[in-house]
Amino acid sequence: MKFHSADIGVIGLGVMGKNLALNIVDNGYRVAAFDLDEAKVFAAEQQAMTEVPERGLVLKGFHSMPELLQSLSKPRILLLSVPAGKPVDGVCQALIDAGIESDDIVIDTGNSLWTDTIDREQIYKGKFIFFSSAVSGGEVGARFGPSLMPSGDIAAWEHLAPIWRAIAAKVDRVTGKPIERSHPGQRDTDGEPCTAYIGPSGSGHYVKMVHNGIEYADMQLICEAYQILHQGLGLSAADVASVFEKWNQGKLNSYLIGISAEVLKQADPLTGKPLVEMILDKAGQKGTGLWTAVSSLQMGCPAPTIAEAVYARAMSTQKDLRMQLSKQLVGPEIKRDPTERQTLIDALEAALYCAKVCAYAQGFQLMAMNAKEQGWQLNFASIASIWRAGCIIRAGFLQTITDAYETAPQLDNLLQAESFANTLSQLQQQWRQVVATAVLKGVPVPCISSALAYYDSFRSDTLPANLLQGQRDFFGAHTFERTDKPAGEKYHLNWSQAERTLVKID
Amino acid sequence: MKFHSADIGVIGLGVMGKNLALNIVDNGYRVAAFDLDEAKVFAAEQQAMTEVPERGLVLKGFHSMPELLQSLSKPRILLLSVPAGKPVDGVCQALIDAGIESDDIVIDTGNSLWTDTIDREQIYKGKFIFFSSAVSGGEVGARFGPSLMPSGDIAAWEHLAPIWRAIAAKVDRVTGKPIERSHPGQRDTDGEPCTAYIGPSGSGHYVKMVHNGIEYADMQLICEAYQILHQGLGLSAADVASVFEKWNQGKLNSYLIGISAEVLKQADPLTGKPLVEMILDKAGQKGTGLWTAVSSLQMGCPAPTIAEAVYARAMSTQKDLRMQLSKQLVGPEIKRDPTERQTLIDALEAALYCAKVCAYAQGFQLMAMNAKEQGWQLNFASIASIWRAGCIIRAGFLQTITDAYETAPQLDNLLQAESFANTLSQLQQQWRQVVATAVLKGVPVPCISSALAYYDSFRSDTLPANLLQGQRDFFGAHTFERTDKPAGEKYHLNWSQAERTLVKID
Repeated sequence: MKFHSADIGVIGLGVMGKNLALNIVDNGYRVAAFDLDEAKVFAAEQQAMTEVPERGLVLKGFHSMPELLQSLSKPRILLLSVPAGKPVDGVCQALIDAGIESDDIVIDTGNSLWTDTIDREQIYKGKFIFFSSAVSGGEVGARFGPSLMPSGDIAAWEHLAPIWRAIAAKVDRVTGKPIERSHPGQRDTDGEPCTAYIGPSGSGHYVKMVHNGIEYADMQLICEAYQILHQGLGLSAADVASVFEKWNQGKLNSYLIGISAEVLKQADPLTGKPLVEMILDKAGQKGTGLWTAVSSLQMGCPAPTIAEAVYARAMSTQKDLRMQLSKQLVGPEIKRDPTERQTLIDALEAALYCAKVCAYAQGFQLMAMNAKEQGWQLNFASIASIWRAGCIIRAGFLQTITDAYETAPQLDNLLQAESFANTLSQLQQQWRQVVATAVLKGVPVPCISSALAYYDSFRSDTLPANLLQGQRDFFGAHTFERTDKPAGEKYHLNWSQAERTLVKID
Repeated sequence: MKFHSADIGVIGLGVMGKNLALNIVDNGYRVAAFDLDEAKVFAAEQQAMTEVPERGLVLKGFHSMPELLQSLSKPRILLLSVPAGKPVDGVCQALIDAGIESDDIVIDTGNSLWTDTIDREQIYKGKFIFFSSAVSGGEVGARFGPSLMPSGDIAAWEHLAPIWRAIAAKVDRVTGKPIERSHPGQRDTDGEPCTAYIGPSGSGHYVKMVHNGIEYADMQLICEAYQILHQGLGLSAADVASVFEKWNQGKLNSYLIGISAEVLKQADPLTGKPLVEMILDKAGQKGTGLWTAVSSLQMGCPAPTIAEAVYARAMSTQKDLRMQLSKQLVGPEIKRDPTERQTLIDALEAALYCAKVCAYAQGFQLMAMNAKEQGWQLNFASIASIWRAGCIIRAGFLQTITDAYETAPQLDNLLQAESFANTLSQLQQQWRQVVATAVLKGVPVPCISSALAYYDSFRSDTLPANLLQGQRDFFGAHTFERTDKPAGEKYHLNWSQAERTLVKID
């Protein structure tokens, strides 16, 4: 059967690549596909064929890069779905060897480090246009509508935008709520697509990296709520699921709360016990969360709740040490008072919301600070809006952030937005009760409590960094500024002299 | 006047370099000195001369690198005290141009990034021996006895060890307490020197980097205690100084508590008010703290208290935003109950000690994990012992750590040491009271509370990472291990199918 002038090539048919390819054909495009593993090529071809037989051959696999290139209309669009790092450059070189042309567009959709993306745009200049589009939503998102964060050459974007808008998740243009799509062959043409051009090369992957950092925090916050309910209040997994389902009707409504309830309700097929209690408590990670925390440290942007979430995963992997220390280190006796139960559950809903706002505030401030350093003009209302559906952190909450940035695009920090400032101010007392209770019961809540410290630090017109500057000046002559003198004027006290004098340093 | 066969050359006569040079001549060595700034050369020469006139010319400045090299006995020892980064390589190149020989030793004493040190040992191989020795103790330490962390070529170390042992801080061989030295010309020959060979190239600077990370945490913890006493209990700066002075007689005895009391007692020469209240609360930083936090994230070693300390400095610099948010964000009303005052002060002493132990546990575990990855054999008893005097974190407490590692050199974490496990178990209830009180009063205590979460996490044989693994398997098919199956066996539940089945993944 002949197959030429395909709309897009997909290279790498792992679960993400295959699902993106199937999503693309659902939306009326023709896909040429390639993978080094021929079984994967065959499987993708078969799946496209059997899912919607009546549409004929719309996804065809090829056995070599030159054949793949020949099958595509020009300028070619090639979507890469291969592991981040060296494999990306391996494929790029293979494409050059196979005769890719200078106006062809190669789109990296993996979780690449953003600075690698910037480097690659330069490296491949003249050979082809290296473009990138981060993808969030996991395998289901890839299949039925992910959130897509494209960045790089603007002309390239205009060329591929129709496909991107077609395959992206959609929200209802009036309500802002996700439009569900879950059947092969289905497509949506009316909704507002969860994709928008982010900015110059690297910016899309940076934004996706921060998305993942926020996701780490969001997941860990939910886990801490589970720990308080389960260990602190003695609720069963099923009872915690019910609490989460109720919360999912309110302010906390989100994909992650929803799937957490699903996981908690799930019985283990082997033992019949709650599955969650049979899952080993050692969390994996793949790098984007720690990259976010590292970037925040390097930028000087406080993002403690994100970093604490990364550390919580690291802590979880030290299972043997924890088992041993659990016998050595003493904690408080946990007293359960049934009358406090509902009060604490309600307070926990408030605390989780407040802590979540802080985690997002950290992520958005980090994006703003890095954008400033890189000279990117990021549209934060747009970024929040394309996270409303498709991605892992999708939630009604993102509409509130979109609104906040539409009202005040130049916010330094989300906590300045009137909506968030007011809500957190109303809920802060419950938040404090939760942290104090967890601390007194011995339940570790590193993220919920670090978020509260973040809130209280930003509430502080004076922090004890004045003492810290005094210490630094004492032992290292690092100098300090004064509250009663112009910014930038530096002073040092001659601490080691018998009569201490103040010296202005030029 | 003739000057040849000097024992050591010192390049860079800023405050650290000059003071190291003066320390070296106090100990009977002859120093040839160089700086691009001739005024600094002259000043160092004059100071050595006027401090102890009777010893004659023991420190002589030179105006060029070739002259400097000619004045030294061979193999030459050259101490570099120049800013970390490019200046180090600039000086190395200048030394090559000036005719340095392959068995000469160049010692970098700056705060270089440890991986740069590893690179440099390779880069300069054959030209000269690139050695490094981190220095802690600030300007006073450099002058009268720093803590020195040398690493690199072992033969080079043996050659320079006599000088290093002479200039290092000393502790009493029986009591382990610092021996004070504060007068030019004075030297100590009996004490145990605070220097020891750390290990291969890079290890000394890594250890010093972690020392600084711990220092960040230690300083911030003291600042949080100040904030609780001042803002939470309403104590004046002088009253807080008295509390710190009392603590300095007990478990918390340390250089940093001592100088904090000094700073708090200090009146401002301009206004007569407490100086601390005239110092602007914007903290500076120079990189080693954030490098430590970054390394801990990359190593997967939980070090949240160190990271929170780095973020606290970043938070402090956002003064304008804090001023604005202090008017927007509501906090609790601070109620002061005089009867609780002494109870809280005592609890705070316990909390500060516990949190400090956790910060050190984080730092030491990080060193152990990185040493394992790098193939370094680090002696942690020795490292703790050389921090007993000279350096910024010097404290009686380091003797307890030395003892713990002497008893059990293979500890994975300091919390396993019986002494610390018992003490923290006894004090944990007071620690909880402090965190709960601060949280309810609205005083931010990011480090004290993150340390408690660290303690409680390590106390947890089961963490909610089981739910987290369930979430990850749900949205990304990331798989999980089971508590009832061998480690390494991976499982996935087919979440999206109508009948969910458990699949073992090979």
